[in-house]
Parts: sequence; structure tokens; C-alpha cells
Amino acid sequence: MNAPDSLAREKFAQLLALTREPFPASTKVYESGVLHPDVRVPMRRIDLSNGEQVTVYDTSGPYTEPSAQIDVRMGLPSVRGDWIARRGDTEAYDGRARVALDDGQKGDAEDARLQALRAEAAALQRRPIRAKAGRNVSQMHYARQGIITPEMEYVAIRENGRREWMAQYLADAAREKRLAGNPLGAAIPRLITPEFVRDEVARGRAIIPANINHPEVEPMAIGRNFLVKINANIGNSAVTSSIEEEVEKLVWAIRWGADNVMDLSTGRNIHTTRDWIVRNSPVPIGTVPIYQALEKVGGVAEDLTWEIFRDTLIEQAEQGVDYFTIHAGLRLAHIHLTANRRTGIVSRGGSIMAKWCIAHHRESFLYEHFEDICGIMKAYDVSFSLGDGLRPGSASDANDEAQFAELHTLGELTQLAWKHDVQTMIEGPGHVPLHMIQANMTEQLKHCHEAPFYTLGPLTIDIAPGYDHIASAIGAAMIGWMGTAMLCYVTPKEHLGLPDREDVKQGIIAYKIAAHAADVAKGHPGSRARDDALSQARFDFRWMDQFNLSLDPDTARNFHDETLPKDSAKVAHFCSMCGPKFCSMKITQEVREFAAQGMAEKSAEFKQGGGDLYVPIKPVA
Amino acid sequence: MNAPDSLAREKFAQLLALTREPFPASTKVYESGVLHPDVRVPMRRIDLSNGEQVTVYDTSGPYTEPSAQIDVRMGLPSVRGDWIARRGDTEAYDGRARVALDDGQKGDAEDARLQALRAEAAALQRRPIRAKAGRNVSQMHYARQGIITPEMEYVAIRENGRREWMAQYLADAAREKRLAGNPLGAAIPRLITPEFVRDEVARGRAIIPANINHPEVEPMAIGRNFLVKINANIGNSAVTSSIEEEVEKLVWAIRWGADNVMDLSTGRNIHTTRDWIVRNSPVPIGTVPIYQALEKVGGVAEDLTWEIFRDTLIEQAEQGVDYFTIHAGLRLAHIHLTANRRTGIVSRGGSIMAKWCIAHHRESFLYEHFEDICGIMKAYDVSFSLGDGLRPGSASDANDEAQFAELHTLGELTQLAWKHDVQTMIEGPGHVPLHMIQANMTEQLKHCHEAPFYTLGPLTIDIAPGYDHIASAIGAAMIGWMGTAMLCYVTPKEHLGLPDREDVKQGIIAYKIAAHAADVAKGHPGSRARDDALSQARFDFRWMDQFNLSLDPDTARNFHDETLPKDSAKVAHFCSMCGPKFCSMKITQEVREFAAQGMAEKSAEFKQGGGDLYVPIKPVA
Repeated sequence: MNAPDSLAREKFAQLLALTREPFPASTKVYESGVLHPDVRVPMRRIDLSNGEQVTVYDTSGPYTEPSAQIDVRMGLPSVRGDWIARRGDTEAYDGRARVALDDGQKGDAEDARLQALRAEAAALQRRPIRAKAGRNVSQMHYARQGIITPEMEYVAIRENGRREWMAQYLADAAREKRLAGNPLGAAIPRLITPEFVRDEVARGRAIIPANINHPEVEPMAIGRNFLVKINANIGNSAVTSSIEEEVEKLVWAIRWGADNVMDLSTGRNIHTTRDWIVRNSPVPIGTVPIYQALEKVGGVAEDLTWEIFRDTLIEQAEQGVDYFTIHAGLRLAHIHLTANRRTGIVSRGGSIMAKWCIAHHRESFLYEHFEDICGIMKAYDVSFSLGDGLRPGSASDANDEAQFAELHTLGELTQLAWKHDVQTMIEGPGHVPLHMIQANMTEQLKHCHEAPFYTLGPLTIDIAPGYDHIASAIGAAMIGWMGTAMLCYVTPKEHLGLPDREDVKQGIIAYKIAAHAADVAKGHPGSRARDDALSQARFDFRWMDQFNLSLDPDTARNFHDETLPKDSAKVAHFCSMCGPKFCSMKITQEVREFAAQGMAEKSAEFKQGGGDLYVPIKPVA
Repeated sequence: MNAPDSLAREKFAQLLALTREPFPASTKVYESGVLHPDVRVPMRRIDLSNGEQVTVYDTSGPYTEPSAQIDVRMGLPSVRGDWIARRGDTEAYDGRARVALDDGQKGDAEDARLQALRAEAAALQRRPIRAKAGRNVSQMHYARQGIITPEMEYVAIRENGRREWMAQYLADAAREKRLAGNPLGAAIPRLITPEFVRDEVARGRAIIPANINHPEVEPMAIGRNFLVKINANIGNSAVTSSIEEEVEKLVWAIRWGADNVMDLSTGRNIHTTRDWIVRNSPVPIGTVPIYQALEKVGGVAEDLTWEIFRDTLIEQAEQGVDYFTIHAGLRLAHIHLTANRRTGIVSRGGSIMAKWCIAHHRESFLYEHFEDICGIMKAYDVSFSLGDGLRPGSASDANDEAQFAELHTLGELTQLAWKHDVQTMIEGPGHVPLHMIQANMTEQLKHCHEAPFYTLGPLTIDIAPGYDHIASAIGAAMIGWMGTAMLCYVTPKEHLGLPDREDVKQGIIAYKIAAHAADVAKGHPGSRARDDALSQARFDFRWMDQFNLSLDPDTARNFHDETLPKDSAKVAHFCSMCGPKFCSMKITQEVREFAAQGMAEKSAEFKQGGGDLYVPIKPVA
């Protein structure tokens, strides 16, 4: 390990320590299963200064549990290991032999650098498991057998939360009506039961991405009748400096609320860094295996073969990747439909496959071997994320024939996947103006049989580079409301460069906003409880509670302190907007006293008196 | 002038000079009137590296015209002076005598500081004009007489732009269909004619805020059938340091695209700084006169009187304020409806009036004197912005009885204002979850007779303090699409503190995104031309064109340069996302060549061959 390496390691170890700090006034709490008593679902409880508590969904994993002993060289403790073992349908085996090419190394020998990286966290190498011959270990398969797995109960508890708001919710029928939202066809029960989760997974309307080789994952569901989820993309550094750096990126993303993380690394050492990421990730990890396959053939798309791709799938499935983006819906016959587009094919995976199809003038091997792929997926419970290789790259190309032709093929493939009980979600665009978003959701629901939709944005306009997290959060909120189950984030650097740590946070917060706006609009039970608690704190001048209930307590507090830095201002009954002399919130208190003194009666009297006569509009001057 | 003053002046003079720099590759161009040859409408032409030009709407005024001689102590040149004079229906008069209290000074004597501030820009004092006795100088009045004013022709030209895109638009019927948008009831003609503007103003469906004492204004329209506009709020500094500082704030806001600016200053020296702002503003200036009236009575709401308020209206009308927010729809009988709200009354103006009504237990003097107010408005052509004093301050209070009761009263008042031919727009919320936004627009259209709607956001969730520009841009885009004519921005500091220069910019850009997303969705002709040009530049790797067409070219370029700083990267046929080895855009070029070689025929052949037989799905493994 040379000097820069050790400096970088130190820097990221410090960052990681910071990233592990619990949120202010927050405590990790756990709810236990009933069907499966060893299910223990973490949540974040926020304690308010008035004694109330608000418990929120928590994606941050053991990292924000102060008592957790975390060593990134050992990986996270297993959550699901016993559950998987109890099912008795898996077997450990030696696994595929790792080769230097997996890490982007030419020739057979690993260089010293790679050897050093591998030695750094040798304990992260695990012996893989797979389904026993003839068995299918997918959550969908269990669901269809009528089995409620621990994973399903976990998801049910997690979606419900502690529901401190429930008593008030039930007590106030009028309020409940306003909370009801407009689900636009979603069917969200007031209480998510384990049986409801099972049924949704069995129907294919939700997935629980959870590779049996990723026992560290805290199960979560992606589906229209659950909370809207978000995905953050991370990639390896040009020169990987340390395991701390790779893991810190992941921990940073889940701290701010990423429900899933896609590892889009390319280039050198990706196999080894993937081990680091998966072993240390409490959230499902997705990949685009064609990227690594392309690396293995030196970046020459036409040299790809089914055999190389298949080998890569098995490599990554053994490592524990939870879902694969596979662009199997891009068929040879679709390609010419893109010829007149303004921005052609902008999906990397899509363009790789288009190039392959053109070069060989034959049908995509992903399409031809789709059921072979299903065979691999169900042996590990890897979920499909069927890629939209022909998604529009500009407003001009939105909803065109190419895009929808591929979507229809994805619908066919969904049914094939379901024939194998393989969990499946569908990727969507991209760039879509506001008025064309509904058509995407309608087409997807119709042709893909309610398989969860997973969209990138969509961006509603093209003229906002530098702010595409905002341009796309608008579209994401809308399509989330309409039924999209997971939103892939866009950072401010989209179209311009590689996101840094701050960009990742900005992208995630923008997407937490979009997802929450959608949840509130759909009327997901309890989704408004946090808003109500925050607004109540605002009205009551409980400043610290207001900060602590925010999506980003640090920024909320820092912004407040820029104007009113003193601690006394945290309890002041005014704020920087109106200042102490005049405060609209204070006046409302007077309105309430006034109302208590019989305003309603006086108003009725006034109305009886004839209103207009009592306060006549003056004649025209 | 003491030392800190002169330092501050120097600092803001430098900032102002920077803010005056033209945007990259941009030239201010002018289109002339036909009906009124002295109409000369500025636009910003962006010259692309491929020889194409894209002309965009320009709110920045003479500040970005390098040849303009600007002296903030003299004010901007008059745009409308001759037009107003030619109409022959106005008269100059001495105006109301200014008193020290106008600037928040107690007693009769002005202190030395105020005298110094006034002396700084003595040339900005103008002799006011007003309508001759019995005349009405509102644009609505002229419109209803069938008169197309220069202001109306100006607006028509401005809304159309140069329409370089028109030939392609007309040539490509299929593309035009996709451009058509979904106007949701708006009726936007392909070409905005002066007669169309006149008709919209006559119907009350659009306003042109343009006080006859603000001849510097570049006329613009606010209406559902025009481009969606945005408003930025500015306020005076706690201690006003210099005229440069006040004017720089304004110039900064219009540089980034504010169509209107509201001056929400309170406290000392506001009369004098308002002179500075109005005389140097090419965009309409709005105010909330009740704020200043409240200052005049020492901040004690119950001491407000109609006489003090009326005097303040005349004071500000003589200075040239273009629209007044007046909370005349908040009636005594509405107040008790807020008693059970989560966050009561959050509008400052609303809470002032509620307090007054409660203290006196009588109807609001604004409501009682509404037609007196109309008499003032039409003598100067000040437009109403009828305030929503009962707007919800949280999702929990959205669309409640209090809010809609006030809205219905605003509808009654609109008809009264129209009886006097006074231009009127209606303010709207606030905090509204996504699924409740449509009801706001529907109620407003129905009860306010299509008078332009002007909303603050709305914020779609409450848990995003620090990011409320994003939480509200989502709601703003949606309500803009549905028919709101102007969107009042929200900065990241909303609910937390006072926005600084960067916050103002962030708020404006978020709202330019929302407004543009709405324009594209509504199918405003030409609104998509800039998106298409930018996406084309992106696809062609014309990096500089991509930056220059952006809403914020500086940020786009800086973000790009963080990853690929070299000048050569600005012409590189790859970007930092995929890198040079593999590029999806390059592959699309190959797709096009492939398509040209007869892909379509081959595809047809393939389809004829029976598709599934030709590339059979393998049997289940």
C-alpha cells in the first residue's frame, strides 16, 4: 500500500465515520415479525420536543445504529441467511472460477495492484449458493405456492411503520378523506399485511429484489401499491483507492434515502469492488451485466457472445447482485425505427445491443436466449429489470414508435419471465414532456400487465443542464403518482459530467421529494404523517423539530442559522421572514381565541343579517 | 457617505457590471412593430456554431445591451413615454406630498441618512401623471374600446419571438402533432396577433401590468394563452447600503429570467429605495401596499385605517408600481373557518387584515372600499393582484373551506374590478398536494371567470425545508400546465431564512424550468424549439452550443469542465458519461448508416418471414 493509498483510505475512513452518525434526535428502532419472530425490521424514530414521536422508513441499514460493530473488510451481518437455509432448497457449491478478466485485467495473471485490492478484504469472498436442481428460489415462486416468506413479512412491517399517526387518522373521518389521495388505479390497503405482500408478488405487481447470495439485504418491495422507491447510481472511481471509498459512496447514498443502488462501474477491478459493495450493502444492488461483458471483449460490441454474457450473469449472480438490467426487448426489427430520431439511441446498453444486431444482422442474443436467462435468474432469485434500450434521449423523441415497440416486447418478455416465476420490473424513460407522461404509464400498465415500472426521471424539458435533477423530479413526481413503483434519480451533473458526493446527495433529495409527493398524492396511508408533524412544529415554532423532521436536517438547520444563528432563535416565536415585530403565526393564535369566543355565532348572525346589506359595496365612484 | 458605504457601493457596482455581461454567444436583437413603428421589442439571439440561430424571450432589459449607457442614478430610458403622451388622456400634477413616514421615519424631519440616500439619486424623482378627470387609462379599458395599444403590439411580438423554427414546424406535420401539446382548455394560436392580445385583455383573460408612471417597463402579458411567466420577490436590506445594491438585486433576478419582480421591502427608507427600483426596472414591479401602511401605524394592525391605506396606494401608484397585492377577499365571515386549521393564516397580508377585522369586529375596509380602490387603479393603470390571505400554509389545510370561500369572494371582486375596466389577476396557494392541484385551477377558472391565476408554487409536500424550490417547482409545473399564468418563485431558504443572491438564482432557475415544462406541455408554439436545438447540439457533440442554449450556461459549462476541463473536450465526440472508448451517440450514427443501407427493407423481409420462426424463443429449460 503506497502513501497516496493510505492517505485516501484515511480520508474515506473519516468520511465513513461521519456518514455513520445517526440523524439528529433519531433512534433506530425495530419491529418484530409475528409469523416469523426472527424478522426484525429497522425504522428511524424521531423524538420531538413535545414528546411526540414520528417513525420513518429507514434505508440506512446498520450504519446508523451506533451499537453496530461494522468492519467493511468483514461485511455486514447476515439478515436472511437463516431464512434461506430453512427453506432447504439451496446448495452451496464451488462457483465459477474467477479469472483476471473479471477485473478487467488482460491475460491470465492478476497484477500486483489487483492482488493487493483483493487481499484487502479477503474475508468478503463467499462460497456461493444456488437452487438445488429443479428448484426455484424466487420470492415470486414461493408467493405463487402460497408461502409467506420472512422477506414478505419484513416488507409488510416496513411499509406500515409504527403508525403513531393511526389513532388520529381513524378518529378524524374528514381528515382521512383528505388523506385519501387519488390513487389513480392503485389499490393500497390501509394496513399492509404479509398476505397482501405475498399476493402482490404472486401477481407480479411487486418484486422483492433479494438474491440468495445477498443475505445482508434488508428486504424491500417495489410495486405500485407500496411506497414509491428511488434508485441511486454509483460507479467505481477511475482508480479505486480503497474499500473505504467504495463503501462510503454506498453508505452516503442510502443515508439520504436511496432504496436501491445500481453499481454502474466499468473498467478495472470491478469484480473485486462489487464484492466490497454487495457484502456491505443493506439495500438491493442492481447492475447492467452487459457493461462488464463488453469489457471482457475489449469494448468491441460485435465480439459479444451469449457465452460471455451468460458467464457474466453467473459471475454476478454468485456475488449476490439482486437485479440485472437486461435489454432483451431491443429487437433487430426495432432498430430502423430510431433512424429518424433527433437523438438516436442514448441508452448505453441499448446501443451496445443495436451495434451487435447490426454487425451480425441477426436477432439480439438476449432476446433469443431469454428463457436461458430466466433459468439463471430463478436459481439465485435475481430479478429482471428489463431495460429500455430505445428510451428517448430528448423530448423530440418521446413516445415514438421505437420506444413503444420495445415496451410491447418487454410486455411479452414479462410473461415469459413470469412463466418461470422470475420477478420482473420494467424500465422506462427518460425524456418525456409533462403532457406525454400519462401515455407512458398507460401503455406500460396495459402491455406489461402491471409489472412494476421503474423510470429514469423523466426529464420534462431539455434546456436545464446543470439542473436536470429538478427538470426530472417534476416528471418523476407525476409518473410516480400515476403508478411508477421506483424512480431512478438524476443528478445535477446529468449530461455534463460525473457526479461527486454533493451531486449524489442533491439527486437523492430531489427524488425523495418526488417519491414523497407521489405517495401523498396516491394516499399511501401514513405518508402525510411526517408532513403534518413538520407543519405542526413550524406553526408551534418548534424549530428543532422542524429541522429534525426534514429530509435533510443539516441543511434546514444551516439555512436557518445563516439568518438567525443564535440558539435562542431556535425557540423564538418568530422567524426571519416577518421578524419579531409582526408575525402571521402569532396572529393566528389570536384568531383561534377569537373563534373560541364565539366567532362562529357572530358570523352566523352576520350571514342571517344579509351579508351584503351589513357591509355594503359602495356604489361605483 | 462613510467608508463602509463606499466599500459596499464599490462592491455592488462591480457586481452590477458583471451582471450586465451579455450571455455567451448571445446578441440583443430587436423586432419592430407594424401598427406602431416605434415599438421595438428586444430578444436574445443565440448564435450556434453550425450557423443556426435560436432567439429566446429576454427579460433582462437594457442591462445586457452592451451599447446601452446605464446610470442607475438617472434610471432607464423611457419605453412607453411617447405612447402614453400620444393617448392624450393623462395629466401631470404635483402629486402627493412626500412625508418622512413614507420612509419609515418617525416625526416630521428626515434624518441625515435618509437625506443622503435621497440625494444619491435625486434625478429619480419624477412628477407623476394620472388619468384626466373622467378618463380611464387601463389597458383593459383601451382593449374594450377596440384600441390596439403599442403595449399590446409589443406583447404580441414578444410572445412570438423570431420563430426561426417556424419553417421546420410547418414542414413537418407529424412533428407538429407531437409539438401540439395538451393545452387543457387553453386556446393558444399559432401566431399571436396584436388583435389577439387586445381581445384577451378585453376579456380579462390576460393583463399587461404597466402603470403610466412606469414608462421604463418593457410590456409583457400574464395570461393563460401566453407563455407562463414567473415572479421573483426581492426585499430591501436591513440597512440599505447603496442604490447599486438595490438595483443589482433586481438586475440579477431579471438576468436569470424573472418576468416580474415584487418588492416586499419593509422598514426604513422603503419609499426612496422603491424609487430606485422602479426607475431602473424594465419589468413590472408589484408590491403589497398593506406592508407599508402597517409600517405607518407602527406595526399595530388594528390602527390601520382606510385613509392611511388609500394614501399609501396613491403614494405607490405615483411612483409607478405596476400591480398591487390587495387582500380584499378576506372577509370577516371567513376568519372563523381557519380556527381548526393546522397552520392557521400564514399570509402576512391575510393575517394583518384578519387581526384588523377581529379587533374591530367589522368587515374588512379593503372589501368595503373595493370600488374606491378601483378608482385609484384605473387612474394610473395599476393592476390588481387579488391576494389569497387565507391560502393554506400546509398540505393539511389545502383546499379547505376558508381557502375556497376567499377564492369565491375574489371572483366577485374580479367582476367589480372589470366593471371599472381594471386589470386583475388572482393569487393562489401555497401548499397543495399533487392530487389536489387540479381542483384549485378548476375552482379558480370557474369562479374567477378566467382572470389570470398567479400561484405561489404550490409546494407538494411539507418535509423539504432547504429544498422547497424543488418541492414547489413540481406543483408549479403542474398548475402552470393546467392554466396558471404566472408562478411566484420559492427559494431554497423558504420557511428558514432570507434568500441570498445564490438562493434567488436557484429559485428563479427552478421556476424557469417549471414554467417551460408547462409551456411545452400546453403546446405553446415554439416553446420546444430551444429544447430541440439543445438536444440536437448534444447529439452532435456541439458542447458550446449545448451550454449556450441552457437556462444557465455558466453552470452547465462549469459542471462539464469539472470532469473534462480541456478545451479539446468541448469539441470531443464523446463525453464523461461513457468516455471515448464506447459512446452510444457514436453508435447511433452507425445505426443511421445501417438504416440508409436498407434496414427497413430487411426488417420487412424479416417480418414477412414470420418473426417468431426466424428467431425462435428457445423452449423452457
